[in-house]
Amino acid sequence: MGEPLNVVTIGNAIVDVLSHEEDAFLERHELVKGWMALIEPHQAEALYADMGPAIEVSGGSAANTAAGVASLGGSAAYIGKISEDQLGSFFAHDIRAAGVQFDTPPIKGYPPTARSLIIVTPDAQRTMNTYLGACVELGPEDVDEALISSAQITYLEGYLWDKESAKEAFVKAAQVAHAAGQKVSLTLSDTFCVERHRDSFVDLVSNHIDILFANEKEAMALYETDSLDEALRLFRAECEMTVVTRSEHGSIVVSGQDRFDIDAVPPANLVDTTGAGDLYASGFLYGIATGRHPADCGKLGSLAAAEVISHIGARPETPLVELARQSGLLAA
Amino acid sequence: MGEPLNVVTIGNAIVDVLSHEEDAFLERHELVKGWMALIEPHQAEALYADMGPAIEVSGGSAANTAAGVASLGGSAAYIGKISEDQLGSFFAHDIRAAGVQFDTPPIKGYPPTARSLIIVTPDAQRTMNTYLGACVELGPEDVDEALISSAQITYLEGYLWDKESAKEAFVKAAQVAHAAGQKVSLTLSDTFCVERHRDSFVDLVSNHIDILFANEKEAMALYETDSLDEALRLFRAECEMTVVTRSEHGSIVVSGQDRFDIDAVPPANLVDTTGAGDLYASGFLYGIATGRHPADCGKLGSLAAAEVISHIGARPETPLVELARQSGLLAA
Repeated sequence: MGEPLNVVTIGNAIVDVLSHEEDAFLERHELVKGWMALIEPHQAEALYADMGPAIEVSGGSAANTAAGVASLGGSAAYIGKISEDQLGSFFAHDIRAAGVQFDTPPIKGYPPTARSLIIVTPDAQRTMNTYLGACVELGPEDVDEALISSAQITYLEGYLWDKESAKEAFVKAAQVAHAAGQKVSLTLSDTFCVERHRDSFVDLVSNHIDILFANEKEAMALYETDSLDEALRLFRAECEMTVVTRSEHGSIVVSGQDRFDIDAVPPANLVDTTGAGDLYASGFLYGIATGRHPADCGKLGSLAAAEVISHIGARPETPLVELARQSGLLAA
Repeated sequence: MGEPLNVVTIGNAIVDVLSHEEDAFLERHELVKGWMALIEPHQAEALYADMGPAIEVSGGSAANTAAGVASLGGSAAYIGKISEDQLGSFFAHDIRAAGVQFDTPPIKGYPPTARSLIIVTPDAQRTMNTYLGACVELGPEDVDEALISSAQITYLEGYLWDKESAKEAFVKAAQVAHAAGQKVSLTLSDTFCVERHRDSFVDLVSNHIDILFANEKEAMALYETDSLDEALRLFRAECEMTVVTRSEHGSIVVSGQDRFDIDAVPPANLVDTTGAGDLYASGFLYGIATGRHPADCGKLGSLAAAEVISHIGARPETPLVELARQSGLLAA
């Protein structure tokens, strides 16, 4: 086993390409606001050609979560696949500069490092169009058993479930973590993603997941119910802990027979919701890894989410540990 | 001749890689705050490895100016050299998406598209470290004579003066513009740059330049004087119009025997001064191209600079034409 870690996350290693567009842009390209669509290179080219000037910034759901854990002062590692190209060098630099251990060997040449074309509308909602590129090469051989065994929590993004070899990596990681007596956590990631893979997600949650993250729509989509309470009842039977995020309405933490309703933290300035769920998870998981009460874990999640939606980009710009100390959630 | 254009700009086509660092970072790497240093790949690698998480956004001084002209509602084109790589595709997309005509053929392969590692300190000052990459391949063959002839103003950045073939491109462009009865404008770009090339810059200003931009330090460095008035007297003898920018103290416009002192426009929020001079030039040149009074050109410059320093990145995020209409500088 390596040095003990709080959290290791596994996901699609992506550079975000963000531009601000009016709602008409979404309509013109038949994009569903707030969702993530997988696109092929020719679709990416057509969409990009119509986008305004953009900025590039490292993203990837689980990578953002790892960066959040590190920003809170926790120890974090990341597993994800890049190519040895310019985008890949940005991704690797940024995740390491965020204080996250990242050693997954890159592929050489084609396909290139993944990018997500993200449309931010005036309401700060983000609509993502992801070309997976090198991410499709992630496989069980990339799951570092010593690393996984050393981490209190292994966190997986549902987005991985779109490719067979990533699914294998996913299941292997869960098995290794459990064999080492550690926890396994999953985010359902996206309603579309849940609908594409509902049955296997239901099995996965039932067999492998201790701590489950979902937003309301994803939670209800998994169990094909219109009742959040019904979904929570079903999750409660399967997972040790379930966390449902509700944007400005806060979050619900279900832990055993207990339920905690957590307030959202209003952002200084609502700019771009990219990364809100990822950062909520980072706060929550850091709290769990450091033995805090579930309600306090939820508060750390709210605090981390509030920071990331107050600026462009899906990773913290202000050290979360400082914000958490200021608000009294972490000891000064 | 092509369609009539307001402004064509020629410069180093660069993608900015920006991170926020404390002043100690500059000291550790022996960087001079506010200046631009040219660096080699191995230096870029060492510096980048020590930088925090960064964002990538298209830059390049003269390219930013072209984007500013377009944002004011003017017609603009850009000449600059990229490589056919991922950074080059971002650069080309962003300048075209900004409404600027850009047709310079990219090189294939090595060297890669240029990048500038930009350190933004807490005082919002930017310190730039530029690896020129593909920019060194810019030459006279890239100067599209029809394009230059069609533009009311050809604007050149002093940064070009570092490479022989770019200098040739520069002089050719000035000659073509003047032969077509158009104006030629130059920014001195950087004090270091002026000191590296003082004698040839003095000749250049004397022989080719109608509208000269400089900040106070650059203006005085060119003529090796401690007196701004003395520098202005010397410029007055050489150029039809001279503009000296003075950060928060506004700018001075010297036109023939007249002098106008222009106030700065306080930014909504001082975040990152990258692009301040570039955007000032865009406002001023758009004003000249549309036949405005020199003092009003200066006010358009101040307005454009205020927008760009209120956010990260060196190109406008809000359409400048809207801001100029709101402030009454352009007709609604």
